[in-house]
Amino acid sequence: MKSILIISGPNLNLLGDREPEVYGSETLDDHIARATSAAKALGFSITHTQSNHEGEIIDAIHAARDTCSAVLINAGAFTHTSWAIHDALKTFDGPVVEVHLSNPAAREPFRHLSVIAPAADGAIAGFGGLGYELAVEAIAKLLAD
Amino acid sequence: MKSILIISGPNLNLLGDREPEVYGSETLDDHIARATSAAKALGFSITHTQSNHEGEIIDAIHAARDTCSAVLINAGAFTHTSWAIHDALKTFDGPVVEVHLSNPAAREPFRHLSVIAPAADGAIAGFGGLGYELAVEAIAKLLAD
Amino acid sequence: MKSILIISGPNLNLLGDREPEVYGSETLDDHIARATSAAKALGFSITHTQSNHEGEIIDAIHAARDTCSAVLINAGAFTHTSWAIHDALKTFDGPVVEVHLSNPAAREPFRHLSVIAPAADGAIAGFGGLGYELAVEAIAKLLAD
Amino acid sequence: MKSILIISGPNLNLLGDREPEVYGSETLDDHIARATSAAKALGFSITHTQSNHEGEIIDAIHAARDTCSAVLINAGAFTHTSWAIHDALKTFDGPVVEVHLSNPAAREPFRHLSVIAPAADGAIAGFGGLGYELAVEAIAKLLAD
Amino acid sequence: MKSILIISGPNLNLLGDREPEVYGSETLDDHIARATSAAKALGFSITHTQSNHEGEIIDAIHAARDTCSAVLINAGAFTHTSWAIHDALKTFDGPVVEVHLSNPAAREPFRHLSVIAPAADGAIAGFGGLGYELAVEAIAKLLAD
Amino acid sequence: MKSILIISGPNLNLLGDREPEVYGSETLDDHIARATSAAKALGFSITHTQSNHEGEIIDAIHAARDTCSAVLINAGAFTHTSWAIHDALKTFDGPVVEVHLSNPAAREPFRHLSVIAPAADGAIAGFGGLGYELAVEAIAKLLAD
Amino acid sequence: MKSILIISGPNLNLLGDREPEVYGSETLDDHIARATSAAKALGFSITHTQSNHEGEIIDAIHAARDTCSAVLINAGAFTHTSWAIHDALKTFDGPVVEVHLSNPAAREPFRHLSVIAPAADGAIAGFGGLGYELAVEAIAKLLAD
Amino acid sequence: MKSILIISGPNLNLLGDREPEVYGSETLDDHIARATSAAKALGFSITHTQSNHEGEIIDAIHAARDTCSAVLINAGAFTHTSWAIHDALKTFDGPVVEVHLSNPAAREPFRHLSVIAPAADGAIAGFGGLGYELAVEAIAKLLAD
Amino acid sequence: MKSILIISGPNLNLLGDREPEVYGSETLDDHIARATSAAKALGFSITHTQSNHEGEIIDAIHAARDTCSAVLINAGAFTHTSWAIHDALKTFDGPVVEVHLSNPAAREPFRHLSVIAPAADGAIAGFGGLGYELAVEAIAKLLAD
Amino acid sequence: MKSILIISGPNLNLLGDREPEVYGSETLDDHIARATSAAKALGFSITHTQSNHEGEIIDAIHAARDTCSAVLINAGAFTHTSWAIHDALKTFDGPVVEVHLSNPAAREPFRHLSVIAPAADGAIAGFGGLGYELAVEAIAKLLAD
Amino acid sequence: MKSILIISGPNLNLLGDREPEVYGSETLDDHIARATSAAKALGFSITHTQSNHEGEIIDAIHAARDTCSAVLINAGAFTHTSWAIHDALKTFDGPVVEVHLSNPAAREPFRHLSVIAPAADGAIAGFGGLGYELAVEAIAKLLAD
Amino acid sequence: MKSILIISGPNLNLLGDREPEVYGSETLDDHIARATSAAKALGFSITHTQSNHEGEIIDAIHAARDTCSAVLINAGAFTHTSWAIHDALKTFDGPVVEVHLSNPAAREPFRHLSVIAPAADGAIAGFGGLGYELAVEAIAKLLAD
Repeated sequence: MKSILIISGPNLNLLGDREPEVYGSETLDDHIARATSAAKALGFSITHTQSNHEGEIIDAIHAARDTCSAVLINAGAFTHTSWAIHDALKTFDGPVVEVHLSNPAAREPFRHLSVIAPAADGAIAGFGGLGYELAVEAIAKLLAD
Repeated sequence: MKSILIISGPNLNLLGDREPEVYGSETLDDHIARATSAAKALGFSITHTQSNHEGEIIDAIHAARDTCSAVLINAGAFTHTSWAIHDALKTFDGPVVEVHLSNPAAREPFRHLSVIAPAADGAIAGFGGLGYELAVEAIAKLLAD
Repeated sequence: MKSILIISGPNLNLLGDREPEVYGSETLDDHIARATSAAKALGFSITHTQSNHEGEIIDAIHAARDTCSAVLINAGAFTHTSWAIHDALKTFDGPVVEVHLSNPAAREPFRHLSVIAPAADGAIAGFGGLGYELAVEAIAKLLAD
Repeated sequence: MKSILIISGPNLNLLGDREPEVYGSETLDDHIARATSAAKALGFSITHTQSNHEGEIIDAIHAARDTCSAVLINAGAFTHTSWAIHDALKTFDGPVVEVHLSNPAAREPFRHLSVIAPAADGAIAGFGGLGYELAVEAIAKLLAD
Repeated sequence: MKSILIISGPNLNLLGDREPEVYGSETLDDHIARATSAAKALGFSITHTQSNHEGEIIDAIHAARDTCSAVLINAGAFTHTSWAIHDALKTFDGPVVEVHLSNPAAREPFRHLSVIAPAADGAIAGFGGLGYELAVEAIAKLLAD
Repeated sequence: MKSILIISGPNLNLLGDREPEVYGSETLDDHIARATSAAKALGFSITHTQSNHEGEIIDAIHAARDTCSAVLINAGAFTHTSWAIHDALKTFDGPVVEVHLSNPAAREPFRHLSVIAPAADGAIAGFGGLGYELAVEAIAKLLAD
Repeated sequence: MKSILIISGPNLNLLGDREPEVYGSETLDDHIARATSAAKALGFSITHTQSNHEGEIIDAIHAARDTCSAVLINAGAFTHTSWAIHDALKTFDGPVVEVHLSNPAAREPFRHLSVIAPAADGAIAGFGGLGYELAVEAIAKLLAD
Repeated sequence: MKSILIISGPNLNLLGDREPEVYGSETLDDHIARATSAAKALGFSITHTQSNHEGEIIDAIHAARDTCSAVLINAGAFTHTSWAIHDALKTFDGPVVEVHLSNPAAREPFRHLSVIAPAADGAIAGFGGLGYELAVEAIAKLLAD
Repeated sequence: MKSILIISGPNLNLLGDREPEVYGSETLDDHIARATSAAKALGFSITHTQSNHEGEIIDAIHAARDTCSAVLINAGAFTHTSWAIHDALKTFDGPVVEVHLSNPAAREPFRHLSVIAPAADGAIAGFGGLGYELAVEAIAKLLAD
Repeated sequence: MKSILIISGPNLNLLGDREPEVYGSETLDDHIARATSAAKALGFSITHTQSNHEGEIIDAIHAARDTCSAVLINAGAFTHTSWAIHDALKTFDGPVVEVHLSNPAAREPFRHLSVIAPAADGAIAGFGGLGYELAVEAIAKLLAD
Repeated sequence: MKSILIISGPNLNLLGDREPEVYGSETLDDHIARATSAAKALGFSITHTQSNHEGEIIDAIHAARDTCSAVLINAGAFTHTSWAIHDALKTFDGPVVEVHLSNPAAREPFRHLSVIAPAADGAIAGFGGLGYELAVEAIAKLLAD
Repeated sequence: MKSILIISGPNLNLLGDREPEVYGSETLDDHIARATSAAKALGFSITHTQSNHEGEIIDAIHAARDTCSAVLINAGAFTHTSWAIHDALKTFDGPVVEVHLSNPAAREPFRHLSVIAPAADGAIAGFGGLGYELAVEAIAKLLAD
């Protein structure tokens, strides 16, 4: 069974608790559970890593090169600054999809630019936990092509 | 039965024919058909308008205020310049979702900024025709909430 | 009797309905009626065109070159992007006055710059429907000079 | 009888004399007289202060907080640099209207941005002395609302 | 006989009348006539479309994909803002040549950048109506190569 | 007994009255009283000048060169524009400390940069009236070093 | 007894040793000791974390959400780049105070902007170790309000 | 006997005392004395005004319109910010010459641009007190032409 | 017989050899030969100078002031940096036409701006050697007007 | 025997595998081996640390202050963002040399600026693994001076 | 007798002939003659070099290091682009004075910045040929100090 | 025996004499001698050209296309402005290596960008004369590959 690595960046461990008017009341576990059922239905398993450490996220991407078929990444605030994660994703051969719970393009200016986008196949933003489900579907499709 | 308005902006009528290495070989009809089955399965109908005229797109959004529950928009190059479409979308009460076949954030700089994003609930980019299906799902979910 | 062309740009047809906290509860018809009485009192008639199409606004300006003495324009979001309307207004010999219901200089940054201003004699902003009356008075005065 | 404070910023004392091709041949006294009759007809009195000193303009705004119902301000070149006048106007509860004799948006780039605009209800530009009359009318309307 | 589509953008219908000190006293008909004789001499016919509507220009480019061998475009003010026309021209396989009557690089800053240039083979600017003749010659040459 | 000059810039005379949600309900007198007791406890006296006039602030700094040991300055909006106050503070030999009642770095962009900072030893922002006490303590410490 | 978390960012472990002409000759231990006595006198305890790892700083802020009443942070060079720390501080309910030993506004341009400032209540800069004492006092005051 | 108005801007009253390594050890009186002898030798008298108040400088320029033949101005830090002084100088018919003791183009970036330069005939910078003498000579020459 | 000076800037001597995929396989001699026949047919002679030295190009323009009727210039990379060539061309009374073999507006950003354009009557770009012929025709026409 | 610390930043552990067309087919071990023989020949030993964690790199620099004579750093993508590494390198007394396998100045714009350069003595870029050898030689020379 | 090198940059050989409304009707010989008498009166001789070649100007500055006491330079358009001349002037130990016939700060934006200013002691602009005389006086004074 | 062309740009002829605190006390001859021995040891000869003339440098690069195997260039200040040298280097087929004696990235901002870098294989900066030796080694390696 093919595995999808889900990477959750800094502060996402606090979901449900942190600024619920922006990010909703669901927890990160809720989102991962949701992604997991979606994946299972499509014949994939999920590996999940949450980290507030940029280095751990890079390490996880490297590890996934041999063990996972795709990466679904919500890099939190690293989205806007980490060229190192961008470079790591460039070394990954399978599909890479960015997910954002809120719509960064409609928030503060520093959230308008994703430096990891050039290393991603696509992005899904603004749909809360549903975004994880949609991303899993998209990954399944990209892997099938 | 609730209706979703799909708006296709300039040059999208040439899909399948135009730069297939960027936009894929499916035609716009293929995408709309796909969105239509996805919608039907979820209990929605689709209304579709393609136009190369910014004004017709604004008119269509206005008309949808009384007749449609949601807007799915791929505004093509108007995405990056039309504050008038942005203002029109702001007058629409239901969910608004941007779709892009390719991932604009990974292309030329002028495609990195969406001026309509602040009037949208979310965005899906980079998944070709699948993006239409995912957007319909997302809209169904946003309407259910 | 000399005629003043009033041009209403994109989305202004929704006035009264659209974001009333920004634009007030009066409709475009209310504003035009108000401008019409003000004009009549000063010996002018009003011709009015509302359009969401940049091209129709340009066409209307061209037509006015032979038939109208002045242009009162609220170009909506085209105010900030349409050098083509700017070029059209430059071909009009009589007075040109910009009107804005709200005060764009106090709103989002993209509304701070008017690209049509260099082709206008003056501007009135922030007074809702009263702005139309004031603009008609101003035009009457500019024509008298 | 309610009073309107008219503030005239730097160099406006030279009107009629200074660059008449830009500012017209009327003097500041002419403009104030015009504003005064317009005000009288609407049941208002006028208080007028001209100063080349930013500090005196701020002092005048402060004094007006207890004695005047509205402020009509032509801040001259301070329009483009004085955040201190902006802050002072923010402390004033009644209507604030900017007037400019010429149309700054059509002149040198440094005149395109008004830093006091975010503290004003509206602006009138490009109509010479008539602008003072129109501004008085606008203020009367804003106070009546 | 191969056909060349000439596209004339906004406000060009007023040539001869509009700012003759910038654009000369010849009318658009004069320019098209000139281009037509030049074309005839080289064995080409001319199709001409003038429009103030960005959408009509895009439609005309699409139509030309099946019917014309080359595009000669003077997009007027759309030259500087319309990425949608740029995208349309990218879908056209034959030669595309920009023509400008005046030399935009020597005029206001907003005319210094052509957003359609990356979709054109070449450009001719500053020679009034002669530019149309030269462009027809250039197109004949590009088609011959 | 050594004296500390406290300089209060434009609009600070309205404290308690002006935008209390931003600046708190204490008056400038309250803040000076607080600074005075703090100073007395540490063996210093306070001289205080409030002015809406940039020139008077510069004059006060010059006068302090012979009579005061330190300057505590809240320059209000002049903080962001007055290179002349910056130059004046550079001529003062003793410690210079900036105080801001609110945290300018968290407000409008024009308040993010202090042009007087390069002439100050340090800054305290965001603590309302307490900031004056803390600044007096800091000055006492800087003078002791 | 309420606890204050002091966070010391990258390279602060070398204080006393590193560029003493900029940062002084006191060590980080000296500063923490000083903050600790100030805190004790006001009825608070201090928890201290120094880390050169952005992720550990985020983890420490998260941990403090349940165990500490306030955060005093000197984020070193992360001050100018870490939106992730900014986001973490936004999830903390109690007071947050930035401290800098030197005055960043008077140093290299890259130190002029604090990206964490929008998540802080206030800032104290330029007073060496005394800044820690002053910040503790400020925190005590903010908690008392 | 024709009179030249010398205007000395903010902080120049401290010359000799203030940063002598930048501005030299001569006092403002020394410079004026030097300018006065140079002027006398050429048949001119000198009127001198030093002020730290922008408004007083504007007033002095206005007064000079009827009484002086030329203006020699060292506007200090106002050189870089005061469009109001720029506007005042524009109203003065005779020659206007900027003098700077040091060479601003070789100092901090904020001193590289003079906003009053567009209202001046020429500028002399970097020669200390000698600059005043040279400027008087230049004015004599400009008046003779 | 009137003479046209053709100026070829740096690296153009290598044409045919240098990056043929960008500049074509024709040599500079080919282009000059082509321009020469075109000129002869229209009654003009050609003088040609190729130089990699900015100063020699300026000298050649100066010399042409007395001996040539027009200048046809392909300034190579100097196009984008040499205000000195711009100033030299401004001293030349006859027509000045820029030619570029490729279309600089569609290449690297540094090639998008021509600093010599404000000193030229027009420009022809993107047509390889044909551009020289077209430019000669254009010059003949400009001289005839 | 003096030791040189070699620091390899994020993603360099994948060398040989990652984008070989950019970085070559040699592994990081190959490069270190090469540096080690070069060092041995010159009487130095090598300590090597590769990390994807910015914090570990800072820790390693700190540790090297007591144990190593020089630092050779290839900071990968941290080169362009990490002021914290810059600050750490500033605390290191011996020579610091940047090495890049490819030539960042000839790649994407974000790679054109090195924020650590102001803390380095020199840089070597574009020579693949040979760069390590050259850097060791350079360090030997700098230590000998 | 000490010698002053006068350097005249590109296009200055055409003075008197070139744009006399900007540069006056005097020739370069007139200016040099004027400077020569001024110099002679003060005990100096003049060496003069005019060149349109940046390299010759640099060579002349190098030669002057052994033979001249000061440099008076009007670098024409090289003023705004030549860091190489800047570097050359930095190697010259004696006084360096920039002269401009017109006032560049009041002309096109590209003339507002002098890149050679940081290598000059001072500048004189806007006084036509008189500027040469004044500069000689200034140099005499700087050499005497 | 293969030859390497060493190009030394403007002002480098003064090495040893010019700002020795920046560039060291060795002369250009010393550096060339050093490069020559390094080259000889590796089986190469050296051709050297120093010029303050951009055009001569371009000519030398052209000449080297037939006679040299590689280019080692220290373009001095031309590094930051000469797109013409960039274009010339692009026509050279062998390896191109930039050398800088000091580390431009750590100096004034105008030295941070090399416009010739995109035409170079690599760069070595900050090692004084040793840089020439290292560059020769690098070239030998690049030629061997």
